[in-house]
Amino acid sequence: MAGETEEAQAVPVNHDPRRLAWAYLARVVQGPSPQLARLVADNGPEEVARAVRAGALPDELVARTAARAQVDTAASDLDVVAALGGRLVTPEDDEWPQWRFLAFAGVEREAGAGEPFALWVVGSRPLAELTDRAVGIVGTRAASSYGEHVTGEIAGDLAVDGWTVVSGAAFGIDGAAHRAALGVGGTTIAVLACGIDRAYPAGHARLLRQIAREGAVVSEYPPGTSPARYRFLARNRLVAAMSDGVVVVEAGWRSGARNTAAWARKLGRPVMAVPGPVTAASSTGCNRMIREGEAALVTCAGDVVEVAGPIELRDELPMVASRDTDVLTGDVLLVYEALPASGTRGTGELSVESGVPIERVRASLPLLELEGFVGLGDTGWFRRT
Amino acid sequence: MAGETEEAQAVPVNHDPRRLAWAYLARVVQGPSPQLARLVADNGPEEVARAVRAGALPDELVARTAARAQVDTAASDLDVVAALGGRLVTPEDDEWPQWRFLAFAGVEREAGAGEPFALWVVGSRPLAELTDRAVGIVGTRAASSYGEHVTGEIAGDLAVDGWTVVSGAAFGIDGAAHRAALGVGGTTIAVLACGIDRAYPAGHARLLRQIAREGAVVSEYPPGTSPARYRFLARNRLVAAMSDGVVVVEAGWRSGARNTAAWARKLGRPVMAVPGPVTAASSTGCNRMIREGEAALVTCAGDVVEVAGPIELRDELPMVASRDTDVLTGDVLLVYEALPASGTRGTGELSVESGVPIERVRASLPLLELEGFVGLGDTGWFRRT
Repeated sequence: MAGETEEAQAVPVNHDPRRLAWAYLARVVQGPSPQLARLVADNGPEEVARAVRAGALPDELVARTAARAQVDTAASDLDVVAALGGRLVTPEDDEWPQWRFLAFAGVEREAGAGEPFALWVVGSRPLAELTDRAVGIVGTRAASSYGEHVTGEIAGDLAVDGWTVVSGAAFGIDGAAHRAALGVGGTTIAVLACGIDRAYPAGHARLLRQIAREGAVVSEYPPGTSPARYRFLARNRLVAAMSDGVVVVEAGWRSGARNTAAWARKLGRPVMAVPGPVTAASSTGCNRMIREGEAALVTCAGDVVEVAGPIELRDELPMVASRDTDVLTGDVLLVYEALPASGTRGTGELSVESGVPIERVRASLPLLELEGFVGLGDTGWFRRT
Repeated sequence: MAGETEEAQAVPVNHDPRRLAWAYLARVVQGPSPQLARLVADNGPEEVARAVRAGALPDELVARTAARAQVDTAASDLDVVAALGGRLVTPEDDEWPQWRFLAFAGVEREAGAGEPFALWVVGSRPLAELTDRAVGIVGTRAASSYGEHVTGEIAGDLAVDGWTVVSGAAFGIDGAAHRAALGVGGTTIAVLACGIDRAYPAGHARLLRQIAREGAVVSEYPPGTSPARYRFLARNRLVAAMSDGVVVVEAGWRSGARNTAAWARKLGRPVMAVPGPVTAASSTGCNRMIREGEAALVTCAGDVVEVAGPIELRDELPMVASRDTDVLTGDVLLVYEALPASGTRGTGELSVESGVPIERVRASLPLLELEGFVGLGDTGWFRRT
């Protein structure tokens, strides 16, 4: 094929052809594509790259890939990122994080759902290690001095305690969270809604360089990509997915931070919020989430660790549905065992029955559901037998 | 008896002997005395007054009454209060409030528990009418400007909406609550831990006069009584008992407002708290109560009405144990019906089963318990059959 010849000519000797195929495909899909990921897992990236170029794909994937199938900047994308000290991380790499059910949440309903196809990363440590104990700390760009102060206290204390602080590098709360982690010599990850070669917001260019040096700057979009609204929403899911829990420090009623919180809920991660003056618009979202039972009230890093202490699921738990309850441990097992053999139970009932705090019951049920152990009917949760 | 002759000489013609007997007894007991109240209900105040003077009482009541049995300032007490435009209100009066289970809560364990023996009241409207729709608004004396502002908003809006604002006339949040109600032409009740002829705190003398004119100043202690710590605690129970719910606006960790909240819980009244900055000592108590699930988060009068909307129990519900569930209505009936015929349920389960919000389930259960409909065992609530 002509395309193949041209590609072969463009390949610099220093790029692995398999990695080039990944980079090509990552730019073609620009975000998650469970179908393409499955195809790659089955056939390898190079064969799928050829099929994409030839349009030899299921209709759905042709529609998704056609627009950029003939654009191949894989080599220069890898060069640009290498020049920043970065790399492309794919599901084939050891450092690919355990996404804990991101593969399932919202995939049927939402664009920008599912596991990322691949990630562009600047930062020296393996991503899986960085996200091993991580808390998302997010909030409004229009932060008050109160919000920035509390963010600094909580993020700083968590970072001292060895937690990675994950956020979105925006002005306001996000920036305060990253800075606090860096300020105590801790680790922080910035997840961007644009290419990792772009400083967005521009005022955070220096901060982003520092985050890349001390932690990681991550994006699922190829170099040069501009931020866009749907990319911010998709980015929020990665902030939640990389974290053991998400803290909203300050949020107005329509803040993007509440979108991150919603993702955390879908992914079974505890959602926490810092209360604030009822007179402050910047705390409206937080106070309301607490009031509605959507978020646990936290006032300090100690509270956060109490709520977000990692859900105990054994590492070997397979991502496909399994009925072998031997893999369940800790809270998750207690919650499962609190379900009757027949009939349903509500979240509150399960908390009472299991002795597991309701926050952690809420976090455990989506995991059990995604694993096929339980289902949710009109009257409550039930065991799948 | 010599004592009787002396008493007859001291009676001014304008005082009803029965009322004089009540006034005498009220000073003798100075606070609640379920036993003495029962004796009076059975035998009338005059006969009991004679028995008290003669020490012709059960041992327990002799011990309780002996110290003041020979002090009879009944006529002058009534004169002092009449001069203030006030009166003694007793269980025999139409305006005696429906105390809704105050008779039961804590009576076995705590001094200063149970229904008041009688109340000294300054204010023109009947007490039962004033307390028909009432919210307690309390908080720290060391209020911040934030706390005073929010108190003003919530108390003012509730008073405009026809709710009586009940508080303790202290500096800080209490004072702000009374002032806000008065400021909108609303109704407010100050419950004192001293005689109603005493302005405590002195700095609130003018405020107390205004409350007496527009609402009511109330105390269970006779004229001249000084405030004392145990009287503040007993007073707090009356603030809770006169209210359909209690809002704590600002409270430090050891604030007396948390004692009022504890009384509200015991009495089945919803407890609410206003969140505040996690950096403010004056909000520590409120944030913590919300975090621990002891109080519902409220931000405005609308939130308060949603939570404190009166528990629906038919007026004719007898105060003695009854198994006739026909008297149950509304939430209380739904909660009762959510209990299984045998076995137990937790609060969370009952909320799920009944569809009644957990706050109102928590408020309903103590009522059902006190009425003998339900009991609380090691594993949860059960129906008494």
